Amino acid sequence: MVQCVPGNKIIRKDNNIMAKKIPFITKEKAEQIRAEIPTPFHIYDEKGIRATARALNDAFAWNKGFKEYFAVKATPNPFIMKILMEEGCGFDCASLTELMLSDKVGAKGHDIMFSSNETPDEDFKLAYKLGAIINLDDFTHIDILDKLTGIPETICCRYNPGGDFKTSETGNVMGTPADAKYGFTHDQLLEGYRILKEKGAKVFGMHSFLASNTLTNDYYPVLASILFKTAVEIKEKVGVELSFIDLSGGVGIAYRPEQTENDIKVIGEGVRKAYEEILVPAGLGGVKLCTELGRFMLAPNGMLIATAIREKHIYKEYIGLDACAANLMRPAIYDAYHHITVLGKENEPCDHEYDIVGGLCENSDKFAHERMLPKIDIGDIIAIHDTGAHGFSMGYNYNGKLRSAEVLLKEDGSFKLIRRAETPQDLFATFDFSEYSFRN
Amino acid sequence: MVQCVPGNKIIRKDNNIMAKKIPFITKEKAEQIRAEIPTPFHIYDEKGIRATARALNDAFAWNKGFKEYFAVKATPNPFIMKILMEEGCGFDCASLTELMLSDKVGAKGHDIMFSSNETPDEDFKLAYKLGAIINLDDFTHIDILDKLTGIPETICCRYNPGGDFKTSETGNVMGTPADAKYGFTHDQLLEGYRILKEKGAKVFGMHSFLASNTLTNDYYPVLASILFKTAVEIKEKVGVELSFIDLSGGVGIAYRPEQTENDIKVIGEGVRKAYEEILVPAGLGGVKLCTELGRFMLAPNGMLIATAIREKHIYKEYIGLDACAANLMRPAIYDAYHHITVLGKENEPCDHEYDIVGGLCENSDKFAHERMLPKIDIGDIIAIHDTGAHGFSMGYNYNGKLRSAEVLLKEDGSFKLIRRAETPQDLFATFDFSEYSFRN
Repeated sequence: MVQCVPGNKIIRKDNNIMAKKIPFITKEKAEQIRAEIPTPFHIYDEKGIRATARALNDAFAWNKGFKEYFAVKATPNPFIMKILMEEGCGFDCASLTELMLSDKVGAKGHDIMFSSNETPDEDFKLAYKLGAIINLDDFTHIDILDKLTGIPETICCRYNPGGDFKTSETGNVMGTPADAKYGFTHDQLLEGYRILKEKGAKVFGMHSFLASNTLTNDYYPVLASILFKTAVEIKEKVGVELSFIDLSGGVGIAYRPEQTENDIKVIGEGVRKAYEEILVPAGLGGVKLCTELGRFMLAPNGMLIATAIREKHIYKEYIGLDACAANLMRPAIYDAYHHITVLGKENEPCDHEYDIVGGLCENSDKFAHERMLPKIDIGDIIAIHDTGAHGFSMGYNYNGKLRSAEVLLKEDGSFKLIRRAETPQDLFATFDFSEYSFRN
Repeated sequence: MVQCVPGNKIIRKDNNIMAKKIPFITKEKAEQIRAEIPTPFHIYDEKGIRATARALNDAFAWNKGFKEYFAVKATPNPFIMKILMEEGCGFDCASLTELMLSDKVGAKGHDIMFSSNETPDEDFKLAYKLGAIINLDDFTHIDILDKLTGIPETICCRYNPGGDFKTSETGNVMGTPADAKYGFTHDQLLEGYRILKEKGAKVFGMHSFLASNTLTNDYYPVLASILFKTAVEIKEKVGVELSFIDLSGGVGIAYRPEQTENDIKVIGEGVRKAYEEILVPAGLGGVKLCTELGRFMLAPNGMLIATAIREKHIYKEYIGLDACAANLMRPAIYDAYHHITVLGKENEPCDHEYDIVGGLCENSDKFAHERMLPKIDIGDIIAIHDTGAHGFSMGYNYNGKLRSAEVLLKEDGSFKLIRRAETPQDLFATFDFSEYSFRN
């Protein structure tokens, strides 16, 4: 019999390899919270969030001025953002409301990186007004911004080198920048800095994002090499010395317990090596680095907590949860793996095969397919792992389902409601029922 | 040169076959609306909605008591629902808020079909209270409902025959019911009716959904044959005579202009043939039929109207819209095709290749890939077709994007705002900013 033993990530028994993830709350704590805040809810681990931020800052401590701009889209909650600000992070925003949220949290000026695309005028105007660093997605945006607000003293350009992106010449293709809608081409980039300098910009940055959710310590170092060489070329050909280089996001997490996690310290050292080999000899040893990590920062530090409310025995065995794809869309749209723990049954044998499903009127609304788990009873608390990023934030109201609450598990073990669950009134807020003969 | 000529669906010229769809509004009308209601917005065609409902009712007019229960999840807007009610439709609901919406619109009792799964207790209670027809998804729900509310006099069971679903023995697999989370198995179904009868139910129905968005006139007839034969078996073995059979949804639409649309009249005749061959001889000639169509009813009668706000010239040519996947998710998550018309340029040559994109910070946020269209200028109004179902309703707030307004184009050519656009305040409604030192 295969046992789920807590405390180890890989367990070998009876020639099977079982891997697991340890949830950051116990059944008792989850029950205590559920008594006050009905499931489903997303819960975030303050301790883990701070530890992740500190590990990142430590890995890049060699770079004076390093700053993580947390990708707000991953987890747009002001209470989470406050914690990250306390750990020295700024915010990567891509829309008007993300800018508004960052402002409400107290982020000022260069604490905000505005990396958007197909940017509406009003978004540019608010970014300018807040003094955010504007990261131009496109060559045409130079003129647009110039006419709207004027070019700010500090400006950044997003680079898209085209082609395929590989971590080595013979390596696997990790992304296809040539198919991505983002950024300036190489020639546009050089011309862009030339024009921006003419228009009075004084402090320049470069940004690039070439692959998503990578599980290799090589992604950032290889990306950094490309950008650092481009920075040297820009200095030589345009006479613009970049002040900062934004490695953007792309460092992923191990959703599957048998996967090997990225080592952020090794990643930081890899970037340092490229920095010392390329930038320093070119007289660019003062370049500040930034990152825009979302998933890496938050995903493992959040879980979706649900209750098993229904069981079904047909061609397969099913457990129905009170959560559904409205609360976590990744399994339904990407067939993404999220690990599941039945709280309180961490030590029980995983000898039952279940489809774990939500109640949307969509057969894709399955959190797990044919997953081996301990026997689940109605009322059991189900923890779905790694939902701290792109979990709540990708939620929707399909089938009239309401989005859940968000809860913070504080460092002292207490908990706090940091977003209330939606009500039917929220869902109906954009109707004017009074006008027709609707019932009230 | 290939010309887009309106009025035909297939145009042959220079040995090319060009297919097109004709939008239900003109550029002039769209401009008039845009002057009052900023893009993006979904617009619905009252005339088309009524015509579709009438065509469906006509195709099944041979069946006394036929009723379409519109799948609310497709387009959960009370003003649209009102129109459908006026055309004799009821509502297929799958959640608490869909029940609430149907109640607000004025649907009563058996005007509501409650077809849900993993159903929470409170949803069952409201369905019972409203007198809706409850369509039980699972054998275990018999006991659950009995304990919660008692078994109502009228009750329906959802059937899942397992295996693969083909329209003929040698035909393509259209769906795999064995992998679907829905319904009773064959044996559970028979046993279920036996128990429900014992518990006092008097009026029985059967429901089944075996394939989605089918583009064949055979789907309903083949499905109907299976259900009709099962109805005969139920009569013979359990002594229960079904009063109604619900063919559910699954009749699709031609998203691509070169596809052949379903002919609802032919479909209705196909079902009639099976009815007369199977049900009538078995003494079941009084069975009422129902459908739960959403996509067929609404998809072609809605469009997403957006404005071209940005252009980009890198490794491909891009046009950026003020709409994004938050307004229409199907292209981003299913790579679904939606036809695009540049309003006012219906007759211009389609000699430009574009990726038509939204501004989400996700490269999947593309409404069209490498699509041949007339030259697009900034400010042009872009009509994205067939968004009347699963368009707005699948919208989300990822990247802090706001969901759009919905507009009704009335039969007399005037228009009406039937849902206002979201504001940042709506997005922030579930936070309590007052508690921390957030800015107000």
